[in-house]
Amino acid sequence: MTTTPTHTDTPRIVTVRQNILKANDHVAAGNRTTFAQHNLRVLNLTSSPGAGKTALLERTLQDLSPSTRLAVAVGDLATENDAARLRRHGVQAEQIVTGTVCHLDAGMVRDVLPRFDLPSLDVLLLENVGNLVCPASYDLGETARVVLLSTTEGEDKPLKYPTIFNTADVVVVTKMDLAPHVGYDRAAALDNIDRARPGVKVIEVSSRTGEGLDAWYAFVHGR
Amino acid sequence: MTTTPTHTDTPRIVTVRQNILKANDHVAAGNRTTFAQHNLRVLNLTSSPGAGKTALLERTLQDLSPSTRLAVAVGDLATENDAARLRRHGVQAEQIVTGTVCHLDAGMVRDVLPRFDLPSLDVLLLENVGNLVCPASYDLGETARVVLLSTTEGEDKPLKYPTIFNTADVVVVTKMDLAPHVGYDRAAALDNIDRARPGVKVIEVSSRTGEGLDAWYAFVHGR
Repeated sequence: MTTTPTHTDTPRIVTVRQNILKANDHVAAGNRTTFAQHNLRVLNLTSSPGAGKTALLERTLQDLSPSTRLAVAVGDLATENDAARLRRHGVQAEQIVTGTVCHLDAGMVRDVLPRFDLPSLDVLLLENVGNLVCPASYDLGETARVVLLSTTEGEDKPLKYPTIFNTADVVVVTKMDLAPHVGYDRAAALDNIDRARPGVKVIEVSSRTGEGLDAWYAFVHGR
Repeated sequence: MTTTPTHTDTPRIVTVRQNILKANDHVAAGNRTTFAQHNLRVLNLTSSPGAGKTALLERTLQDLSPSTRLAVAVGDLATENDAARLRRHGVQAEQIVTGTVCHLDAGMVRDVLPRFDLPSLDVLLLENVGNLVCPASYDLGETARVVLLSTTEGEDKPLKYPTIFNTADVVVVTKMDLAPHVGYDRAAALDNIDRARPGVKVIEVSSRTGEGLDAWYAFVHGR
């Protein structure tokens, strides 16, 4: 049996939420216009905590910069750790501290843009807060939304978090080097991804061994 | 540099949120009274998606039931998968489908309680939605809050998600059998946990090998 939650004040929550989302979509459209003006490719990277977003970004910066001109904005509830990790690779990385907010929104991205010299960039990578729920509802104005799924998380996650997988332009399966150690069931994972988002492109990588990164880099470049 | 998010309608969001939280705390207090009347120990298990909550629960049911009388309520956005997995062990497992809501709240728990025969139970396990942000703010009326951290997620998570770690009564480090494969830095993880929640009890386990489960079972029994 299944219980549907009954909130005392559901109608009010929904109304406010819809207003926020409308305001967010308006700002996201502005961001999208800005990105188009500068011919800038912008990727919104989402996943659960610890799926390997920062590791994939580190490897990407190391391998593609400076021939591709990259920069990163990183969202986290607290700490500057990720931006500091990424700056070691000689690219600009700005931290967006969200406090108790469980996702980036378009306004946070708009507010960080003046720190970047957009005309000098090819690709801007937005690392969202580690969360498989909240970021699904917030368009940032990105060119493409990337959802990461690690082999250590369990193959059922696309079915358990359908909203975020259903909005993915590409699903990157990370930590492929750990697949044998965790009994990863590749067929089940791919099937569940396809059920959540039929036909979506899947790229399987290991940021540690380099497996599959060529396909990921082609996506970063929009090829 | 750090950007603090500026929402157009922050005051309204905060007001509504505070009202929801007050209503939630009221319901949570009612749940707590109910649990006390039945001398029932209730654990609220939280973690990021894929940290191993369901695997730990499966192993716990297998090892402790029926000598300890256990039951489970499982929160998920979608699917009955987890409740089905847990029922195989011969205990009652009820699914709470939260839809787009990223956490359990006290009302959802109150509404599922009539399905259980509370006087016949020793321990009720509440498996929260996989999320390191939202569940932090919602008291369910539980006896203790358990936060799981897997060795595959990265040692920095307690610093990046301080709110949930700061409300933990115990932190369970899971997937200890994978620690050597992922280069898990135990000293850093324990240090970060202690910085987020000074003095908190830490239990290190592997649901696969059984390592550390005696300490976890002692906690389940309230010893």
